[in-house]
Amino acid sequence: MSNTTEHTVKAFDDDIGELRALVSEMGGLAETAIGDAIHALIRYDLETAARVVEQDDRIDELEAEVERHAVRLIALRAPLADDLREAVAAMKIATVIERIGDYAKNIAKRVPVFEHRVEIEPLSILPAMAQIVSEMVHNVLDAFAARDAEKAKEVIERDEAVDDFYNSLFRALLTYMMENSHNITQSTHLLFIAKNLERVGDHATNIAEMVHFAATGEYLDDRVDVSETFAPEPEEDS
Amino acid sequence: MSNTTEHTVKAFDDDIGELRALVSEMGGLAETAIGDAIHALIRYDLETAARVVEQDDRIDELEAEVERHAVRLIALRAPLADDLREAVAAMKIATVIERIGDYAKNIAKRVPVFEHRVEIEPLSILPAMAQIVSEMVHNVLDAFAARDAEKAKEVIERDEAVDDFYNSLFRALLTYMMENSHNITQSTHLLFIAKNLERVGDHATNIAEMVHFAATGEYLDDRVDVSETFAPEPEEDS
Repeated sequence: MSNTTEHTVKAFDDDIGELRALVSEMGGLAETAIGDAIHALIRYDLETAARVVEQDDRIDELEAEVERHAVRLIALRAPLADDLREAVAAMKIATVIERIGDYAKNIAKRVPVFEHRVEIEPLSILPAMAQIVSEMVHNVLDAFAARDAEKAKEVIERDEAVDDFYNSLFRALLTYMMENSHNITQSTHLLFIAKNLERVGDHATNIAEMVHFAATGEYLDDRVDVSETFAPEPEEDS
Repeated sequence: MSNTTEHTVKAFDDDIGELRALVSEMGGLAETAIGDAIHALIRYDLETAARVVEQDDRIDELEAEVERHAVRLIALRAPLADDLREAVAAMKIATVIERIGDYAKNIAKRVPVFEHRVEIEPLSILPAMAQIVSEMVHNVLDAFAARDAEKAKEVIERDEAVDDFYNSLFRALLTYMMENSHNITQSTHLLFIAKNLERVGDHATNIAEMVHFAATGEYLDDRVDVSETFAPEPEEDS
């Protein structure tokens, strides 16, 4: 290997390393934001809710940084095949993480609506659901950092549990609304919060598909239909 | 201008022209899908609903085509400044249009849930809302094709009307649910449909911001907070 080639390879590795670090930082912030937002909801903690909303700006800034970085890398280093796929993936993943941050922010923004600590039974599902989607976000970014297609697939498999949680919660909240019309406003907001978490699961799944493609150059055959989970419960669908 | 330079410029112009055409095709399909999905809902037209779901595959394919095309263009032609921004914008816009297609598909997938033609008063708002968001999608892609930053700004301004519609519908549906618990299931599904349309407006706004940046190299100062509209109605927010 000539010195020039070595130098180029080193420069590229530095660049892509920096890109990966930025994406990881974004992912960490989004993961924390989800947990904090649900925590704020459960404890009616307005301070934490406000902090989640505020810190979303940092995620947005990082997305712009990833994009600038990736575009510069592609334009200056003209990477081929694997490396090009990875730079493009970083840019696309950053866009999705930004959206995940928005979902956490949306949850946090709803907290003041409840006016006090919410103590209804269906609510107990939310922290478990938040836990799973946070882990999905965490694991899919580990998979990206390690170019690990198998680990990405495992993330996709977990999304089923999220959908099951969402469907249970949907039914529970509907029943709760029907029992007493005074529950309707509160339950509707909880329904949107549950839907936000479910969408985070879908987005982690999207990222997993991108990681798989970046690592292998192949699309997943059994590509998950991300909008499937938006559909109504099976029993209502027929 | 030398022959070689001329040749390069011509090749680049052809490439970017093809890229623009793909993005326009995607946008046209998404725009039609929104109108058709709402039409299918209002008339309980299961055939049209099924067609919208089916045709979403084509939008997904086009997104992959745009990405391949843009990456190849960036890697082979190494465009600078304006042209690089436009190629990156095309790729990002395609991702957003794919999501808009998903929202239309989600609406279409809910149609069978209603089991018959829905004839409630709040529903009358949906076609007008669908009309505006379809036009936003149409106009923002015209703005992209023409590199017209001003036209992009006009799209952003229209999103306020969409949010107003959504907020009216949200209140109307909540009232409707409270009046009679038998309305709850149906109204909840309509609420999600309204939210899907409202999200299409947000995404058209996102595209408008990308078009503005691609055309001018500057971010909009008064950058619209895309998640703002996710928040509950003002009177509940305090």
